[in-house]
Amino acid sequence: MSPKLKIYLAQINPTVGDLEINAQKILHQFKLASEAGCDLVVFSEMAVCGYPCEDLWLKKYFIRECREKIFEIVSATKNSQCAILLGAPTIDFERKKEIIRNSALLIERGEIKKIINKKTLPNFGVFDEHRYFKPAQFLSLVEFRELTLAILICEDLWPLKNLYLLQEQILDVVIVINASPYSSKKHEYRQRVTQNFVTNLNKPLIYVNQVGGQDSLVFDGSSFVINKAGEIVLRLKEFEEDSIQIELEKSGKISFPNQSTKHAETNSAQATRSTKHEARSTNYAACTLALHDYVHKNGFKKVLLGMSGGIDSALVAAIAVDALGKENVFLYALPSRYSSEESMIDAKNCAENLGVNLEVISIEPVFESMLFTVKNVSEVAKENMQSRIRGNILMAIANSTGALLLSTGNKSELACGYATIYGDMCGAFNPIKDLYKTEIYELAKLRAGVIPPNIFIKAPSAELRPDQKDSDSLPDYEILDQILFSLIEEQKSVEEISRFFDKDLVKKVAKLFYSSEYKRRQAVIGPKISDMSFDKDRRYPITNRFYK
Amino acid sequence: MSPKLKIYLAQINPTVGDLEINAQKILHQFKLASEAGCDLVVFSEMAVCGYPCEDLWLKKYFIRECREKIFEIVSATKNSQCAILLGAPTIDFERKKEIIRNSALLIERGEIKKIINKKTLPNFGVFDEHRYFKPAQFLSLVEFRELTLAILICEDLWPLKNLYLLQEQILDVVIVINASPYSSKKHEYRQRVTQNFVTNLNKPLIYVNQVGGQDSLVFDGSSFVINKAGEIVLRLKEFEEDSIQIELEKSGKISFPNQSTKHAETNSAQATRSTKHEARSTNYAACTLALHDYVHKNGFKKVLLGMSGGIDSALVAAIAVDALGKENVFLYALPSRYSSEESMIDAKNCAENLGVNLEVISIEPVFESMLFTVKNVSEVAKENMQSRIRGNILMAIANSTGALLLSTGNKSELACGYATIYGDMCGAFNPIKDLYKTEIYELAKLRAGVIPPNIFIKAPSAELRPDQKDSDSLPDYEILDQILFSLIEEQKSVEEISRFFDKDLVKKVAKLFYSSEYKRRQAVIGPKISDMSFDKDRRYPITNRFYK
Repeated sequence: MSPKLKIYLAQINPTVGDLEINAQKILHQFKLASEAGCDLVVFSEMAVCGYPCEDLWLKKYFIRECREKIFEIVSATKNSQCAILLGAPTIDFERKKEIIRNSALLIERGEIKKIINKKTLPNFGVFDEHRYFKPAQFLSLVEFRELTLAILICEDLWPLKNLYLLQEQILDVVIVINASPYSSKKHEYRQRVTQNFVTNLNKPLIYVNQVGGQDSLVFDGSSFVINKAGEIVLRLKEFEEDSIQIELEKSGKISFPNQSTKHAETNSAQATRSTKHEARSTNYAACTLALHDYVHKNGFKKVLLGMSGGIDSALVAAIAVDALGKENVFLYALPSRYSSEESMIDAKNCAENLGVNLEVISIEPVFESMLFTVKNVSEVAKENMQSRIRGNILMAIANSTGALLLSTGNKSELACGYATIYGDMCGAFNPIKDLYKTEIYELAKLRAGVIPPNIFIKAPSAELRPDQKDSDSLPDYEILDQILFSLIEEQKSVEEISRFFDKDLVKKVAKLFYSSEYKRRQAVIGPKISDMSFDKDRRYPITNRFYK
Repeated sequence: MSPKLKIYLAQINPTVGDLEINAQKILHQFKLASEAGCDLVVFSEMAVCGYPCEDLWLKKYFIRECREKIFEIVSATKNSQCAILLGAPTIDFERKKEIIRNSALLIERGEIKKIINKKTLPNFGVFDEHRYFKPAQFLSLVEFRELTLAILICEDLWPLKNLYLLQEQILDVVIVINASPYSSKKHEYRQRVTQNFVTNLNKPLIYVNQVGGQDSLVFDGSSFVINKAGEIVLRLKEFEEDSIQIELEKSGKISFPNQSTKHAETNSAQATRSTKHEARSTNYAACTLALHDYVHKNGFKKVLLGMSGGIDSALVAAIAVDALGKENVFLYALPSRYSSEESMIDAKNCAENLGVNLEVISIEPVFESMLFTVKNVSEVAKENMQSRIRGNILMAIANSTGALLLSTGNKSELACGYATIYGDMCGAFNPIKDLYKTEIYELAKLRAGVIPPNIFIKAPSAELRPDQKDSDSLPDYEILDQILFSLIEEQKSVEEISRFFDKDLVKKVAKLFYSSEYKRRQAVIGPKISDMSFDKDRRYPITNRFYK
């Protein structure tokens, strides 16, 4: 019989900087794996401290505290046959100078047996690893019991160069520990790169990912095992902590001694992942987990938001109820003279369907006194004024109740600057920040049971002046979103996009987009869903005269 | 006689993305150098596009437009004996893939004679060059007429490794083109590193820096020439465009055919740079230029701000008048029931001294209607409410007049979260964002002629409740700023700082600091003055439980 390893995949949700809680989670999973007679339990990249820690990683005393926490974990392994593979920052030396590495630690029987360092440091998109770490010069193979493991850390899996390096080596399995953030296309990317990897190496691969929300990033988990034929034979849950035990033979054969039906189901669901409905519901789950973790990890429980009667706030209310429970969601309607009865009815129906009370507070007395106080106000200023009064009222409630205010602007609106800074842009978190208006409608269909039909069919309006419609200032969202997608996600020039749309329209949209950079700089964070979110993906100068 | 070169140092203020204007400035300086019979005119790093362009550099079509602009400059050199050394992004190829370099171009007689690429890409502090560029593998020497030039790009000057590499070479002069942002200690750092460089090489060095404000960075210019003995023999103006012609012999001898007295004076002023007064006035000049350039480069002329009667807004008003002219500064006092008569008198006197009208707008009617509208409001919420009413009023005026609102929060306040988000934190720019409260007092002394004496001596207060003083919630600024400096600039732990201050106090300050990260994330930008500004230097997670 071929020698084999019992490997336990532990997909945990760590909290950045909470070394104590993270260590507890690690030790709990280790105990389960150990009791199940496993040889190895595998955790994600930076499991000890959470990912990304950003400038916390620059603090030597933080790295030293991580080390102390690792020693606690190490000593727990003394009397177990189960080893741990764990991501953590480590201190190394280069020309007598202390440097920090992004490492994987192989811990066995009370000792750190091997430290493997990340070779390929991502420094693009949302990543800044050259700011924090020094790269390893080589990839590492580790003899573990009777098998040879190639241990990679996240980005190490992606460049072909690393595949070529491993092709020169003799190994039995590739284990990749990851903190790979979600985007709606990430599954596809990961699948493509790992399938290419294993089919060229002809070895199985184990991929363990972090799960959980961390500011503007969501980690989807979705850890998986892929056999040497390139088939995904198992996938852990998305957007939840999860774990499983597998058996891996030196021959490459993989089996699941205790596979529950839930994993089988997840796996078969995977086959249809590419359908529209599936994409929608993973995006919804990403927004929900991002909001849940932002609120809870920051020590809050409750949220509030203003309901305009439109699709954006309706969707955010639904996400909030799903993320935090209806008892923790507080909804307010803040009508002015320009608010339609239709909007108030829609907002009320939506709140009712969600099982949440809608408190109505008229902004008219304050708006009146503002108009009395500030003379010679332009029409645009009057519109913004109303939005800012609402912001002030909602923040006063937030400050008085300890609930966090949610912002409800969509990506199309933020891209065009069609949002009031210090007004509807107020908030601690915006769950739908990275979704275009057309995507909002798609996502909202998932909650069509609670979002009233009228909200889907009526024309979008900010209701800040009589009979205002979004389409007065902006092109139809179907068109607008295509132009914005080309500008933002595809990084195309005005000239290129003008091949498909009216040039003056493209120019107008580009101008709105580039000239509202200052608003986005002061915007609240929200979860990355696309390949080009506004938080960490896109770093643009405010002062900039290149609008092409 | 030793062969010599006539070199023209052109310290210009480019605008990010404005290739047309930048090229015009370059061609104008080239014309002057050419007419003066120079051999070479030297411009700063990325002179063609401005620095930093951030994600603009990721757009291939932007880099191609830069290339077109460079060709225009190249063709202007056809019939001149004067060559150009110019910083720009260039497209290169690595394994058949297009990559972008941070380059210096030597342009002579209608041709690009040589492209030198930056070897040392900074990716720390405010810099992200690994995100954009690929590094060169070596440093470049260029034979130019009868001299051998070592051409470095900014950070190439800093690592000792590069000095050692050049020590192996035969060369006559080091020319460094820079986009080196200002910080109050930057002169000292630059002087130390260049003096070490030249005394070890025993060759003169020419340092040409960018000048001007770009979002949260200010480039101070202060280009200089240092002889092989390590003496700074010439320094160009700080915070202004400037240029000069020098003669450099192969022997290393430097002379100034047309040195004007202004340069001699600047030079002698340099000797006393380290005095307190000097540091103060360079910081003041940095804030002033940063504000001027932010306003003008973004197409605005006018600014407004709220005058509380305190030192912060008084200093910002003085800076604004110096930066933009009193006719472009609009001042408002927005008293509530808690505003003291003293404050109103101080604000009025300050405005009068600045020659600016102070318009008084009471926030009481709006505050009353807010209190009527929102029930069960906590005391803190009432305080924030007033600040947000002021924000709304000032923004309404900004939106109606096309003036930019200035924010006036200091670094101590932003560090402790002792500022109201969407209230006094509103604004397009904050000229004093990176100055601690104690530094504000120091800086304000420079404008003691216009800032009334009473503002210096009274106790700071937000005046949001009866008899409120900052010292009710915060320790004295003298103490607070020392603790904050240790936490922020020195990155010390609570434990380390507690050796010098009361532990509970340090813990309290650290908690205020780390738990107000969400406010800073939504804060307006302001110029970097310190070694650890809140804009690009410090990148911290909001969700973080490590408060040590």
